[in-house]
Amino acid sequence: MIIDGLGDRPLKELNNLTPLQAAKTPNMDEMAKKGINGIMDSIKPGIIPGSDTAHISILGYDPYIVYTGRGPFEASGVGLDVIPGDIAFRCNFSTADENKIITDRRAGRIRDGTKEIIGSLNEMVIEGYEDVEIIFKESTGHRAVLVLRATGDVGLSDVISDADPKKEGKSPKKVVALENTSQSKRTADILNKVVDKSYEMIKDHPVNQERENANEAPANIIIPRGAGAVPEVEPLNDKYNLKSVCIAETGLIMGIARFAGMDIIEVEGATGGTDTNLDNIAKAIVENVENDEYDFFLINIDGADEAGHDGNGQEKLKFIEKIDELVISKLLDLEDCYIILTADHSTPISVMDHTADPVPIIIKGPEVRVDDVSKFSELEAYKGGLCRIRGSDVMDILMDLMNNSTKFGA
Amino acid sequence: MIIDGLGDRPLKELNNLTPLQAAKTPNMDEMAKKGINGIMDSIKPGIIPGSDTAHISILGYDPYIVYTGRGPFEASGVGLDVIPGDIAFRCNFSTADENKIITDRRAGRIRDGTKEIIGSLNEMVIEGYEDVEIIFKESTGHRAVLVLRATGDVGLSDVISDADPKKEGKSPKKVVALENTSQSKRTADILNKVVDKSYEMIKDHPVNQERENANEAPANIIIPRGAGAVPEVEPLNDKYNLKSVCIAETGLIMGIARFAGMDIIEVEGATGGTDTNLDNIAKAIVENVENDEYDFFLINIDGADEAGHDGNGQEKLKFIEKIDELVISKLLDLEDCYIILTADHSTPISVMDHTADPVPIIIKGPEVRVDDVSKFSELEAYKGGLCRIRGSDVMDILMDLMNNSTKFGA
Repeated sequence: MIIDGLGDRPLKELNNLTPLQAAKTPNMDEMAKKGINGIMDSIKPGIIPGSDTAHISILGYDPYIVYTGRGPFEASGVGLDVIPGDIAFRCNFSTADENKIITDRRAGRIRDGTKEIIGSLNEMVIEGYEDVEIIFKESTGHRAVLVLRATGDVGLSDVISDADPKKEGKSPKKVVALENTSQSKRTADILNKVVDKSYEMIKDHPVNQERENANEAPANIIIPRGAGAVPEVEPLNDKYNLKSVCIAETGLIMGIARFAGMDIIEVEGATGGTDTNLDNIAKAIVENVENDEYDFFLINIDGADEAGHDGNGQEKLKFIEKIDELVISKLLDLEDCYIILTADHSTPISVMDHTADPVPIIIKGPEVRVDDVSKFSELEAYKGGLCRIRGSDVMDILMDLMNNSTKFGA
Repeated sequence: MIIDGLGDRPLKELNNLTPLQAAKTPNMDEMAKKGINGIMDSIKPGIIPGSDTAHISILGYDPYIVYTGRGPFEASGVGLDVIPGDIAFRCNFSTADENKIITDRRAGRIRDGTKEIIGSLNEMVIEGYEDVEIIFKESTGHRAVLVLRATGDVGLSDVISDADPKKEGKSPKKVVALENTSQSKRTADILNKVVDKSYEMIKDHPVNQERENANEAPANIIIPRGAGAVPEVEPLNDKYNLKSVCIAETGLIMGIARFAGMDIIEVEGATGGTDTNLDNIAKAIVENVENDEYDFFLINIDGADEAGHDGNGQEKLKFIEKIDELVISKLLDLEDCYIILTADHSTPISVMDHTADPVPIIIKGPEVRVDDVSKFSELEAYKGGLCRIRGSDVMDILMDLMNNSTKFGA
């Protein structure tokens, strides 16, 4: 159970308490009291985790090997079945003028119609590279993903530069090979042609004509970035002999779960914000735990991270209290199971972004060595019996407790 | 000073205390009070250690490199001087019928006469492989070890399958090469011939004739398993500039000590069980420390692990109290030395096997940073000044305290 971005630093406006310290969390505190506590560095001390790399690490994979860039996880997150060897990119729908100068990187924050535009783009074939499949898929808003899949003998490479000019008033950057291999060179060449061709194919798309008539910026060009080669990943179920499932709100986390071969349960009303439907999330967890179909759940609730990025301490505090009241209260009664309550990283209000401050962690369940900690917070957890562990320890510790691992040696 | 299998989990029958918590251990508590305390993962958090891999790690060797399988350590444990490149196996004396179907994997749990049978087996030469020495040695009961030593130009390999059919009513399994190398293929071929030839050589051995006359299952075939290539190991004395010795009860631990080039002191009456002669062990330690011949002692007392495997909480508790009274009391008075009191792994009563729960550790001696912990237990140690360390840290910390290591840098 991962409360995204939960960790924080002492805040002056909260009397030098963190939002988690200041929040009233009787159920989390009860869990701390019944469990063994500690602090966790998702990757290692001082390394600022992304939500993706943190989850990868907590699931027992080495993010320095598996995480080749954000593209593959975004692609997986929007539901594309990527396969090892694919090169995946995050994309923006942008607005370009007739000289292909980008006038709006986010195409007027377009909300509707991207699915239709993607339908056209998916007919793209690049001359001379007929052996490379070009697969687009829309994500939320102006976001999309692009996957290049080599079906012939010559592969592709993610060692190429970005097309994104990062600001308006510039042309898309020419993508160049960053290593002297035919794979890198041909991938760069394909990508430049994809950007050009996208403009040709969609500039007059009916959706864009409508937008222009309504004085909205058209989504008339695709700008890819964050190339990543899809890695080979041993399915979580094989790695740990489990039947596993993920309940998450965002495509990024679902993408990681899908990568790891986990099933996904989508929850109605889960928005990834502080307005999410926590009741439905709690219900999904409890029902599925009691169903007994799965023996491992990865749960991610995202809103505290959003409040952190917004620098809104009161909102973060209130959302933590809501999670405590609506979700954690329901988990306390679950029997014959281990519950791990933690975060993927800190998103301090004062920083408005992720930091490497370790996060508190509780493990509650049969036979754990219950320690003296009786409050769930960054400033109590370190006094607990787990001391300071790493994200990469979590699955091993859990599998040991579940009697689901084997002895190394005699 | 390693109390084998000491760690445990809270036990209902002991009011949710661990055996170590519930035991009266005034001397261990005194040591905790005078020392610096922590918890230790012998290998790393969540990884279930064997006694062998744990000791290897605590002695400062990487078990993921050194531990190639159980064979080499068993062979060393029974006193064979194995050398790097040898391929060592654990073996059973078994009973085969005239069709070489195994009718008893343990040869009626034979106790006597195996030394004589081994005498015959050690004359074995395999035609076509005259450059490979075949060395057998009896262990306890129906157990033995086999070492293959290449004396010519072509080496051997441990990447082969097992001969052990694992159940009765089957023939020995044909051993096959598990990699496409001449070493692997020839080792598999040799091993198949060793199994066949063992039957020819010992089926009519006088010991077996006697057993058949007494209606006992004859020990008429050798079934090897657990192939391991003997690793290159830097002697502990060289690695740390020490004169080191081991006082242990079991072949497994003595085998590791011998591997590390340590001297061995055998103690009369040391059984490896809870009936062991703790007075003699204490005397051996104190006398030899005072003799000043050695400057590093590895001590292993095994009975608590046995009680753990038996699931006998009271026996484990009582044995811990006996160690406290008869051994630790004597060590408290030793001057001018560092004492590390810890375990190799947990063997919880409830699990009846090893788990990865970390173990408590005390370091007592001149100038250590004495902390507030005043009781030796899993549930106090984590509050100490060592926090949570790994087995692989222990020798480095000790050498530093002993002023026996050098600065890395300027």
